[in-house]
Amino acid sequence: MNKKLDTGPYRGVRDFFPEDMRILKWMFEKIRKVVESYGYVEYGASILEPTELYAAKSGEEIVNEQTYTFTDRGGRSVTLRPEMTPTAARMVAARRRDLGFPLRWYSIPNLFRYENPQKGRQREHWQLNADIFGISGVEAEIEIISLACAIMKGFGAKDEDFEIRINDRQNKLKGLREKSLSPEQERGMWQLLDKKDKISGSDFRKRAAEILGESLELEFEESEKTKQIISALGEIGINNTSFSPALARGFDYYTGMIFEVFDTNKDNPRSIFGGGRYDDLTKLFDDESIPAVGFGMGDVTLREFLKSRNLLPAYKPETQICIASINEDDVPNTISIAKRLRERELNVATDTTNRKVGDKIKAADKNRVPFFMAFGEEEQNTNKFKIKELSSGDEREFDEDGVVNFLKDNQR
Amino acid sequence: MNKKLDTGPYRGVRDFFPEDMRILKWMFEKIRKVVESYGYVEYGASILEPTELYAAKSGEEIVNEQTYTFTDRGGRSVTLRPEMTPTAARMVAARRRDLGFPLRWYSIPNLFRYENPQKGRQREHWQLNADIFGISGVEAEIEIISLACAIMKGFGAKDEDFEIRINDRQNKLKGLREKSLSPEQERGMWQLLDKKDKISGSDFRKRAAEILGESLELEFEESEKTKQIISALGEIGINNTSFSPALARGFDYYTGMIFEVFDTNKDNPRSIFGGGRYDDLTKLFDDESIPAVGFGMGDVTLREFLKSRNLLPAYKPETQICIASINEDDVPNTISIAKRLRERELNVATDTTNRKVGDKIKAADKNRVPFFMAFGEEEQNTNKFKIKELSSGDEREFDEDGVVNFLKDNQR
Repeated sequence: MNKKLDTGPYRGVRDFFPEDMRILKWMFEKIRKVVESYGYVEYGASILEPTELYAAKSGEEIVNEQTYTFTDRGGRSVTLRPEMTPTAARMVAARRRDLGFPLRWYSIPNLFRYENPQKGRQREHWQLNADIFGISGVEAEIEIISLACAIMKGFGAKDEDFEIRINDRQNKLKGLREKSLSPEQERGMWQLLDKKDKISGSDFRKRAAEILGESLELEFEESEKTKQIISALGEIGINNTSFSPALARGFDYYTGMIFEVFDTNKDNPRSIFGGGRYDDLTKLFDDESIPAVGFGMGDVTLREFLKSRNLLPAYKPETQICIASINEDDVPNTISIAKRLRERELNVATDTTNRKVGDKIKAADKNRVPFFMAFGEEEQNTNKFKIKELSSGDEREFDEDGVVNFLKDNQR
Repeated sequence: MNKKLDTGPYRGVRDFFPEDMRILKWMFEKIRKVVESYGYVEYGASILEPTELYAAKSGEEIVNEQTYTFTDRGGRSVTLRPEMTPTAARMVAARRRDLGFPLRWYSIPNLFRYENPQKGRQREHWQLNADIFGISGVEAEIEIISLACAIMKGFGAKDEDFEIRINDRQNKLKGLREKSLSPEQERGMWQLLDKKDKISGSDFRKRAAEILGESLELEFEESEKTKQIISALGEIGINNTSFSPALARGFDYYTGMIFEVFDTNKDNPRSIFGGGRYDDLTKLFDDESIPAVGFGMGDVTLREFLKSRNLLPAYKPETQICIASINEDDVPNTISIAKRLRERELNVATDTTNRKVGDKIKAADKNRVPFFMAFGEEEQNTNKFKIKELSSGDEREFDEDGVVNFLKDNQR
């Protein structure tokens, strides 16, 4: 015998068995409903992108240390996309003359990071990306944060479950501005701020001193624009916001407002997702910049948040009923009634194997099919069907129309 | 200035601008509706798989010459999945004790092939995979072919638009069986048969002689099982079938029935999709084999078929209306009415930029938003709104409830 293969997935990625897939689909459906209600339309792209798309703007650390990058047989360097924003900017730049602005686009791509496996972090995750292009005024920031908030509310989250922390890349560090930082020093400081929560206070001070060449007190200033955004959000009923001067976010391409939605759970206070304004990204492709604001919302953190708040639904498979033949002679009629129920928009599995009905019930129950019906000569002759609810064992009798109505009433 | 980046995608893959994404989503929705009605539940997995998953069964040519395979930083060989069946078998083998059989699973993964670019073929495509596990009898073949046929019908294809060609890997070539072929010779012949349509008749004969060591007439025999399948399909109204002895299909893992759905269009007679029985694939993982029948249906060929038969829908974006503020003072009320319409389940974009209404109409029209409404002081005071259909220029007046009803009536 050959050596047997392992049944697990590649390290750091997930298999989605039906019950996991169902939650993923449920999250995407909820998300799609809200973002489409705001006028966003869906686009998509391949996970394969030329490496140069990320080299310029994603931040060096991300491309060099954290991506899947390889050379194809034609000698081209290819990267499995670690984020969607550069792809969105590329596609908008490609058709800027044919697209109407403001342009609202969303996508739910899978993204890849070469994470250190011992951290237990995912190497692939799914993420909503929603972006508005073509608006330089704060209406764009306000809409994007409103949208982020509407999605959270759409999942049943309450105002007190999360906090929207807002900052602006243009907000200079008070002490630093007076010292006229070089662009390198300023960038270094933002990168350091991004790591602030992960390192000790003394480490932070030490590294800041290395970047700035001296030790100093850090003070922050709230910009007019940030004040304006927070006040406008308050006017439309969004009050769980705060100015958060140390908020940095990892990507180099942000040019203005940045925000993160934080879980207020005291046992696990952390960022769920975030985004910001990036006005210059399309300049990678030509000289014209298109103002843009957007955010990304990953499935892993979102799911953990929803789980911790009991907002995830119980699993129900797509299949509504399993109809099992009692004897071999009953197979053709079993297939016929299944076909009729399908024509009436029900999702029907059949079990026409040569096993006992009890075994067929066990198999359907393993797959969590909610209802079961055995089909034999008597059912065929009387048009009376016993529907068994597998979770409770309860049985109810219906004629064929009754079966259809009962199952439709029990749809999720 | 830095050198500007190209706005095109990586070679051989596609960007899905909203109008392309919409068709992809429409195809998937149709497919999901039909496969779920047959009791199939959706699973998913990462595109990253250990290379060894494909080495054993996919056929050497596919793994060595046609996949994206690279070594990760941990020294593991990783392949971007070229097909879904090995992943499905892996996942079923992983949970065989917890799953109920017959098990019906489907997925709509993206798949990667390193195709020769000059052929103009796609390096990434999307594909429905539907599989039934745990049935060794012909009911499984009949259900899978019925399902394939139901999907075609679901798209509006007629019986005469396609033909289902059926063969069986167990059908021995008549002349060959009598000669007791070695397994290598038999495998070589199937691989050659798979190329039959692409090479000349004399080439075929020459290569067959090389494999068999002599020149001979090829004759084929229809097995009892194939007859049984074709007859059973006829009984449930599927008559566009034929026994197709030269049908081979590329993968090594088929063990019984194989089928392909062919476009009957005389100008472009070709395979749209296909599948077959593969009973031994789970033996890669342990000693127990699970009988399985399934098929894969790719988006590119399907879309071309639907296009050639005029079965694709016209593009309509997800967004139903654009509401534009007339003056700057009208912005808050424009945002308010948009919010109210969203609460009534409409998809509403706003345009609150400082442009003229005419420019706002042009922008909405570029994005193919079907309806447009300008919102100013008069609209706010009178509760009368003019809805302009952008394709025709027609205008109709409604109150707010009327707008909601009109847009709902015009939903696709």
